[in-house]
Amino acid sequence: MPISVLDIAELIGAKIIGDSNIKVTYLSEIHKVEEGSLMFVDNEKYYSQSIYSAASAIIIDKVVDCPEDKVLLIVDNPFEAYNLLAIHYSPFIAIMSNVSPTAIIGSNTVLEPGVVVGNHVTIGDNCLVRANTVLLDNTKIGNNVIIHANSSIGNDAFYMKKQKDGSYNRWHSIGRVIIEDNVEIGACCTIDKGVSGDTIIGEGTKLDNSVHVGHGVVIGKHCLLAAQVGIAGKTIIQDFVTIYGQVGISKALVVGEGATILAKAGVPKSIPGGNKEYVGIPAGESRSKFREMVAIRQLPDLIKKVNEIYSAIFKNKSNIDK
Amino acid sequence: MPISVLDIAELIGAKIIGDSNIKVTYLSEIHKVEEGSLMFVDNEKYYSQSIYSAASAIIIDKVVDCPEDKVLLIVDNPFEAYNLLAIHYSPFIAIMSNVSPTAIIGSNTVLEPGVVVGNHVTIGDNCLVRANTVLLDNTKIGNNVIIHANSSIGNDAFYMKKQKDGSYNRWHSIGRVIIEDNVEIGACCTIDKGVSGDTIIGEGTKLDNSVHVGHGVVIGKHCLLAAQVGIAGKTIIQDFVTIYGQVGISKALVVGEGATILAKAGVPKSIPGGNKEYVGIPAGESRSKFREMVAIRQLPDLIKKVNEIYSAIFKNKSNIDK
Amino acid sequence: MPISVLDIAELIGAKIIGDSNIKVTYLSEIHKVEEGSLMFVDNEKYYSQSIYSAASAIIIDKVVDCPEDKVLLIVDNPFEAYNLLAIHYSPFIAIMSNVSPTAIIGSNTVLEPGVVVGNHVTIGDNCLVRANTVLLDNTKIGNNVIIHANSSIGNDAFYMKKQKDGSYNRWHSIGRVIIEDNVEIGACCTIDKGVSGDTIIGEGTKLDNSVHVGHGVVIGKHCLLAAQVGIAGKTIIQDFVTIYGQVGISKALVVGEGATILAKAGVPKSIPGGNKEYVGIPAGESRSKFREMVAIRQLPDLIKKVNEIYSAIFKNKSNIDK
Repeated sequence: MPISVLDIAELIGAKIIGDSNIKVTYLSEIHKVEEGSLMFVDNEKYYSQSIYSAASAIIIDKVVDCPEDKVLLIVDNPFEAYNLLAIHYSPFIAIMSNVSPTAIIGSNTVLEPGVVVGNHVTIGDNCLVRANTVLLDNTKIGNNVIIHANSSIGNDAFYMKKQKDGSYNRWHSIGRVIIEDNVEIGACCTIDKGVSGDTIIGEGTKLDNSVHVGHGVVIGKHCLLAAQVGIAGKTIIQDFVTIYGQVGISKALVVGEGATILAKAGVPKSIPGGNKEYVGIPAGESRSKFREMVAIRQLPDLIKKVNEIYSAIFKNKSNIDK
Repeated sequence: MPISVLDIAELIGAKIIGDSNIKVTYLSEIHKVEEGSLMFVDNEKYYSQSIYSAASAIIIDKVVDCPEDKVLLIVDNPFEAYNLLAIHYSPFIAIMSNVSPTAIIGSNTVLEPGVVVGNHVTIGDNCLVRANTVLLDNTKIGNNVIIHANSSIGNDAFYMKKQKDGSYNRWHSIGRVIIEDNVEIGACCTIDKGVSGDTIIGEGTKLDNSVHVGHGVVIGKHCLLAAQVGIAGKTIIQDFVTIYGQVGISKALVVGEGATILAKAGVPKSIPGGNKEYVGIPAGESRSKFREMVAIRQLPDLIKKVNEIYSAIFKNKSNIDK
Repeated sequence: MPISVLDIAELIGAKIIGDSNIKVTYLSEIHKVEEGSLMFVDNEKYYSQSIYSAASAIIIDKVVDCPEDKVLLIVDNPFEAYNLLAIHYSPFIAIMSNVSPTAIIGSNTVLEPGVVVGNHVTIGDNCLVRANTVLLDNTKIGNNVIIHANSSIGNDAFYMKKQKDGSYNRWHSIGRVIIEDNVEIGACCTIDKGVSGDTIIGEGTKLDNSVHVGHGVVIGKHCLLAAQVGIAGKTIIQDFVTIYGQVGISKALVVGEGATILAKAGVPKSIPGGNKEYVGIPAGESRSKFREMVAIRQLPDLIKKVNEIYSAIFKNKSNIDK
């Protein structure tokens, strides 16, 4: 629903620079803005990225030069202003009954005992939600989805803003979790909603137990995620990716289509797909990583050998392990 | 209950090669077959292992030569036929009340609020099941067992069959979880049932919080598993094994009696017991692994030293880190 | 409440050496004793530490020389005697209703459906406890605290005592979990109570999902712990510490104020704070660890180079990788 920047400026006490007649449609994070977006920036490092982004209006703590079509909303604390708007337009409402009266549940869908369904959750047909799983507000689930026991879907994003005194303020999340058709989610999984966009689990993807999916993560179709995998916020996992147990994937990166990530790997940056296989911390292509692992086993002997050589050619210098 | 192969053939539309009068007693995976087993094979690589196994009958996608006492059931898609049989003889029944009327609960056993007990679960005497834990169908629990809050015992195996189009089909699990006497299971643990056999937690074994135990895993007596350990399907942990926090153990391997696996290790293949201690990713005996760790700390200096030597003896060649 | 050692001696069948008129106030573990503490020791290695500690009375399996002001309580099995006292003075009481009538809940605090609140739990004002979370006995929660779905707070310590036959006995926990103001705890987290002292989550600290906090851990103010972090028992995390995803921290150590620990690190011993950053298994300062990681990538080439040198100068010796 488009909202006038005049109304917004009044709500957050901002001074408007630019056309005060425009309307905005989305509250957006800097990662993902489009025409109609209202975003905020409070760090000079990101001023220029923000001003030349597609966003229509920007909450900012300083008057800066900017393209004519942008509207600036000047406030002292842009983060607080943004958060106030998020809470105003998408207020938190506690879940008051096991199945919220605002939830929509498809035909032939079974909710086992202890399942809690939050406000405005929708679940498709032929789904099975096993005992004691919690589906939090605005979660949207397709058809033929199975969610095992004790999982929590649609938790608030773990997205904290550090204050000057070192304490943290939570960023109010307004995104959702969207689970497409034929997905299966294990027991004790945690899937957080997006801060401004949605967290998406693509069609046919299967998650084992105790998998953590951070805010705004987008997982493609027909992926396999084994137990205890963790994926940090805003990361994109493309289609047909296989991730073995206890892998950790850092935030805001891309795992390419068809990639395989072996158990316990830690992925710190984007990796291409195309049937490549990765392993290690930090993860690399498995062929070279396995070669390194073999080499490490030879390392104690190598050190001895180098010392032997060193003694032979520089007789008067001392060795490494002395 | 023995079932005639004639009935099975009719159910799955198979052509029978061999003695159509025999009966089978077990649906089995290739890992563990015995006389009376009905198994399936759909990969030429495993034809010969299957045909010369102890199984009495084999669902297969091709007529092949085989010993006289074997019965072949020929179908186009053996996996689908197997899954259809599993579902037919062990159909899924949702849990409809907090404690299923088919469950059996021993004397002096306490179920705290929010505990859900599935169909045909049996619990022995003097057990304590803490709040919001879920015990799924057919789970069998001994005496003096404690299960902490929010755990999920008896989840479906995470055992997916890749289809030609890259999507996955779940293998219908017919095994159980068996928890022997004096076991303790932490909070938020997940223990999956076996695909065809049982997952077993041996007498006196203690699991800390958020431990994941995959399908068909067999853990021996008096083991200790610290928090966030994960064990993949079909692995055997023998008696008196100690596993520290966040260790991951791969599938279908054996950890020998009395082994100790230090924190964060990743175990990719079977390891002997006998009081040996393991560490690292991939895990090795701790004595040699600790030596490697010390050596790695010397590696940057070693490279400099080798370059120095190299320059001294091959003056015209370039160095590694140039 | 001070209790006379005479009463204690009678309860556990101990012989008293020393002043039988004194009273003790605390049951304590060896890690943390003070005047008024009653502790136990059953290992000669710790006799002298125990006898010269601040404890007022010591349950011990042997008459030993000790300072005049100490009282010794001689029994055959000090651990069993200690455990008997712990159970006697702090008996386990199962939770019998969703919210125990002995719990105290502040104003403006919301408990969503399925939340279970144990005996003698206290929760402050303006808290939100999301669906299906379990707060176990004696947990004490401040104001403005948020706990997400399916978490388990106040589980028994995972603190097992090995018996001579290799089986384990649980140490009965009498500590509590204390959560200070403005803390946020993710979904599916597990926080154990202390064995004798308390587990504390300091003011303003934020935990992401599936974090495990062991018995007696003390976390300072304004720390951030990302998803799937695990902290073993009795460890101290000072103020303003940041811990990334899947980090594991060993027991009974100290992480200094302001430290940052990068994802997947394993911390085996105490590390200083002061804005230092750590990474790796075992964790070290990130600057030197990253240098090692770069060096490891050069290792296969280094081995070739060393062999080349070796051949050149010791023509008749064989090389490492032959």
